[in-house]
Amino acid sequence: MGGQEIEQLIRLLGRLPGFGPRSARRVALYLLKEPQTRLAPLAHAMERAGNAIKTCSSCGNLDTIDPCHICSDPLRDQGLICVVETVGDLWALERAGVHRGVYQVLGGTLSPLAGIGPEDLDVAPLFEKLNKGTVREIILALGATVEGATTMHWLMDQLAPYGGVTVSRVAQGVPMGGALDVLDDGTLAAALGARRPA
Amino acid sequence: MGGQEIEQLIRLLGRLPGFGPRSARRVALYLLKEPQTRLAPLAHAMERAGNAIKTCSSCGNLDTIDPCHICSDPLRDQGLICVVETVGDLWALERAGVHRGVYQVLGGTLSPLAGIGPEDLDVAPLFEKLNKGTVREIILALGATVEGATTMHWLMDQLAPYGGVTVSRVAQGVPMGGALDVLDDGTLAAALGARRPA
Ligand SMILES: [Zn+2]
Ligand SMILES: [Zn+2]
Repeated sequence: MGGQEIEQLIRLLGRLPGFGPRSARRVALYLLKEPQTRLAPLAHAMERAGNAIKTCSSCGNLDTIDPCHICSDPLRDQGLICVVETVGDLWALERAGVHRGVYQVLGGTLSPLAGIGPEDLDVAPLFEKLNKGTVREIILALGATVEGATTMHWLMDQLAPYGGVTVSRVAQGVPMGGALDVLDDGTLAAALGARRPA
Repeated sequence: MGGQEIEQLIRLLGRLPGFGPRSARRVALYLLKEPQTRLAPLAHAMERAGNAIKTCSSCGNLDTIDPCHICSDPLRDQGLICVVETVGDLWALERAGVHRGVYQVLGGTLSPLAGIGPEDLDVAPLFEKLNKGTVREIILALGATVEGATTMHWLMDQLAPYGGVTVSRVAQGVPMGGALDVLDDGTLAAALGARRPA
């Protein structure tokens, strides 16, 4: 519909997660009806966020500072590291406000079938900290999926040599087949509170 | 989460139609994970579309040229005007490819309760064409809602003095309470094909 600029906008919107052609057209129309008050501010916010975004070299979080505001917060327990699959999971735990330590974002899960191996996971910062001896406890907060379980068992093998480090895993509350970032705050709190030795 | 640039992006995404806080975070994360290949092209497309967008002075369509590509197409029947509520309805009819004339986009419907009166509808171009005597037939393609019916009856009153103009309305296929732009192409074709005198 309309000129190529409009068609290109609809095409790119249609690639967003959760979008189809219909929702892409709907959002495009919504924005184009009020270019000055709807479209321009969003385009500007996207540009600003795109220019500001950094991946935290310490934990893998997305933030506008590196180290991120969690890793650089002196009130967070640097000796307590929660391992999550994605930045979305980290954000979910932060919204719930149930973790007072820091994080390690793996950026994925092991999946032999999909050809995703240990070298594809972002674990180097975690083992650097372990080798420095600054880690006291690790919480494995992975999804209750086949890939999450595979990843957890591989991690537990890697962590076994670090005898002085307590390793626990979130257990109660994570439904089978479920990802962490769809859970409500109470469920996340329960899952963390009821963690048990791995 | 993260810096204010990220929070502002999530806030603006959350205002889009069909979005909640969760889908806003999901889309923000998707974009921010790949700023160069995902976020920048979309921001650029939005800027280009925002700079190019024009409201057609002849029919109310959103396009990058004025008159729009429909109004300026010599192969379209300028004497056959389909009246629709929104640009989304126009786009739906164009996708279905069932109308060979041109359009008038009202930009809304009459709603005494919401304080929307005739002066808020974009009908001036339609009556200019009627007064010039270039209109042969008008199809009222309004939604089967209370407001759509109110608008249709008001329009029919306004059109009554133009004795030589055939006025019809889409009938079969528009479900009660339904808007036009959710219908499949076949239903739209049937609704137009089975139009009857108003
Ligand atoms: Zn960090
Ligand atoms: Zn036009």
